[in-house]
Amino acid sequence: MLTAIPADFYAFRVPQVPAQAELDEFLARAMVDVIVREEFAALLRSGERRLRIKQGFDPTRPNLHIGHAVGLRKLRQLARWGHEIVLIVGDWTTQIGDPTDKDETRPTMSHEQVLKNAQTYVEQFHMVVPRENSRIVFQSEWFAKFGLRDVIDLAGKFTAQQMLQREEFRKRMEKKTPIPIKDLLYPLLQAYDSVAIEADVEMGGTDQLFNILAGRELQAQLGQPPQQVFTVPLLEGLDGEKMSKSKPKTGIWLTDEPNEIYGKVMSIDDALMPHYYEWATELPWGEVKKINAALAQKQIPAKEAKERLAWQITSELHSPAAADAAKEAFARQFQKGEAPEDMPERVLGADGEREISYVDLLVRADIAKSKTQARQLLSQNGVMVDGNRVSIDGTLVPSGEHVVRVGKRNYTRIRFR
Amino acid sequence: MLTAIPADFYAFRVPQVPAQAELDEFLARAMVDVIVREEFAALLRSGERRLRIKQGFDPTRPNLHIGHAVGLRKLRQLARWGHEIVLIVGDWTTQIGDPTDKDETRPTMSHEQVLKNAQTYVEQFHMVVPRENSRIVFQSEWFAKFGLRDVIDLAGKFTAQQMLQREEFRKRMEKKTPIPIKDLLYPLLQAYDSVAIEADVEMGGTDQLFNILAGRELQAQLGQPPQQVFTVPLLEGLDGEKMSKSKPKTGIWLTDEPNEIYGKVMSIDDALMPHYYEWATELPWGEVKKINAALAQKQIPAKEAKERLAWQITSELHSPAAADAAKEAFARQFQKGEAPEDMPERVLGADGEREISYVDLLVRADIAKSKTQARQLLSQNGVMVDGNRVSIDGTLVPSGEHVVRVGKRNYTRIRFR
Repeated sequence: MLTAIPADFYAFRVPQVPAQAELDEFLARAMVDVIVREEFAALLRSGERRLRIKQGFDPTRPNLHIGHAVGLRKLRQLARWGHEIVLIVGDWTTQIGDPTDKDETRPTMSHEQVLKNAQTYVEQFHMVVPRENSRIVFQSEWFAKFGLRDVIDLAGKFTAQQMLQREEFRKRMEKKTPIPIKDLLYPLLQAYDSVAIEADVEMGGTDQLFNILAGRELQAQLGQPPQQVFTVPLLEGLDGEKMSKSKPKTGIWLTDEPNEIYGKVMSIDDALMPHYYEWATELPWGEVKKINAALAQKQIPAKEAKERLAWQITSELHSPAAADAAKEAFARQFQKGEAPEDMPERVLGADGEREISYVDLLVRADIAKSKTQARQLLSQNGVMVDGNRVSIDGTLVPSGEHVVRVGKRNYTRIRFR
Repeated sequence: MLTAIPADFYAFRVPQVPAQAELDEFLARAMVDVIVREEFAALLRSGERRLRIKQGFDPTRPNLHIGHAVGLRKLRQLARWGHEIVLIVGDWTTQIGDPTDKDETRPTMSHEQVLKNAQTYVEQFHMVVPRENSRIVFQSEWFAKFGLRDVIDLAGKFTAQQMLQREEFRKRMEKKTPIPIKDLLYPLLQAYDSVAIEADVEMGGTDQLFNILAGRELQAQLGQPPQQVFTVPLLEGLDGEKMSKSKPKTGIWLTDEPNEIYGKVMSIDDALMPHYYEWATELPWGEVKKINAALAQKQIPAKEAKERLAWQITSELHSPAAADAAKEAFARQFQKGEAPEDMPERVLGADGEREISYVDLLVRADIAKSKTQARQLLSQNGVMVDGNRVSIDGTLVPSGEHVVRVGKRNYTRIRFR
């Protein structure tokens, strides 16, 4: 799985100078922080040397969703301009577990599992970022030989106070949830990665800003030019919250089938469309701005805008033909012939639940009179949801609109508030 | 300098069972914490197996003072009963610097300096603890091969909250003084020492209780029987505060000459005598109790009690003959013939100063009219303090009583409040 380094990889290659409009879009679309914006822009504009772009990942859950693709498209752009993408497999940080956005620490994993996950991750990574101009390194390259002396030196560069400023640590302090000391080492190791590969630039989700800035600071302390830093926004999933590896049912995955992708996009909350258009598609920026302005003014129907969005995302991840087919399959199930135009509709609240069992769904939508009856219907394979036959153990993420069919003709439309 | 381990060192040797009175004194005299008292007493009483007693030290400033001897006498007692003393040279913890009782971190030292200091320390250690039944190990034995994986495992056993409970860290947090993360690693390494040597017992000054308990806890977490713990009090120095390696002028050093020891003990504050009698002498405990009771009731003059104390301490560190000679020399200077009985006396405040220059002393005691005159007297070698000719650069620790002579006959007695 390791990309061999081509012989001329480090040879001097002049990167391409981006057109101004291209650069402007790069620095503004789907961008949160850029540190230091003017320096970074000047480096990209100058085209004097290839920049080394660091992208680290912890191979815990290896699947990528379209939220990850937001950042990967940035890397693709940099690779296309001729810069070098270094993908760091966090085989050591994974042994600690990233404390980011967690109030508990993660379990550690076996080395074998780490390698297997890394392989999956890298395959999916290259669905967006071309193999050319990318290379993959393992933290083991430097951390396998790290001794106590190195740890002490590194741990002398940062203070407990700095670390405890992090929001997730502050929360744990307040809640009196234990913070193992190893969790304080996590940002240090990640920071050291920047030093080890002499990164010029590091990218991450906006929740990684603290860790990435630690890398910048460590480089400065050790006499390296501090890396440029940029962060991308975190795309919301089907439940309206940040899409996350730890909530597989609410994400749209790069490996999802066309029909799944299309159907999932159709089920997002209307209010999320502007984010999806800007961050999760490759539609020209001018067009995105127009669509989003029209949505804000309610000049296009939400349904039409969502169909276009679903088609676009499916098309980019698969092909226009696959997107056409998915659109048709979706329409067949929901809009034409098979289901009547006119059916009873139930509006349900979700009360923050992440998943609702089909048993509960049938009861709450007044389709079944009791849980017993709901179980009976489900166990008889008599329930279809959005055209799929569902089982008694299944669950649904409560968002968007769904059509439930019981038996041959009994349709109900369910809409979540 | 390493004590070779005798071939039969680990052979089964039954330790001596202490007499009850001896054990009672051991557990009560100059003892602060004993954890767990009943368990520890039972182990000592049983005489079933040799206990391994851990004593760690950081070879920063290598000289030992009589405050250290308080603990060393405990070790001597244990060695005499046949238990094994393991002296751990903290060649790795020294690279971090013990954050105990400091509000700033210590500078790191070269390996060469560490070894040199360790040698000095060990020589002085054996002025009190016999070489038999003692052995010396370096932390390098286990920490030189410690890898990042080991550090992560260790750092997963303790929480940031536990560490920050330590008084010195709490103080630094309040004062917003930086706490480098390496300082949080210090107690972890010291704790690991207990695991590495499989300690049964650890001793330290009372300010080390936190670190020592961390060792006990780590052993329990890793499935070893947790070590017994005891701490000894911290003897006050000439300035009335804890005797400390970092304030050499206020300590009584094991390598001090008899006259120095005698004179220094004579200069301690009267109120410290009970501590000195109980903690810093080997007088039988019954006798110490009687003397201290008499002092409390003012049944013996303070001066007489202090002369006995000074003689006793000098005698133990050197010999009765050396103590006799020191006593005589001291008396000659202060009490008889050479200096008149009747001389002007000045009582000076010290306002918390640790040292007063002789220049200032002469001015404040009205011996010189100005600093210029004071410097003149000193540069002419015309000033004696307590029988010693003093120089213009010299300083005095402001405590007790001193006799200043200028020229041949001009005597002044100075007493510090």
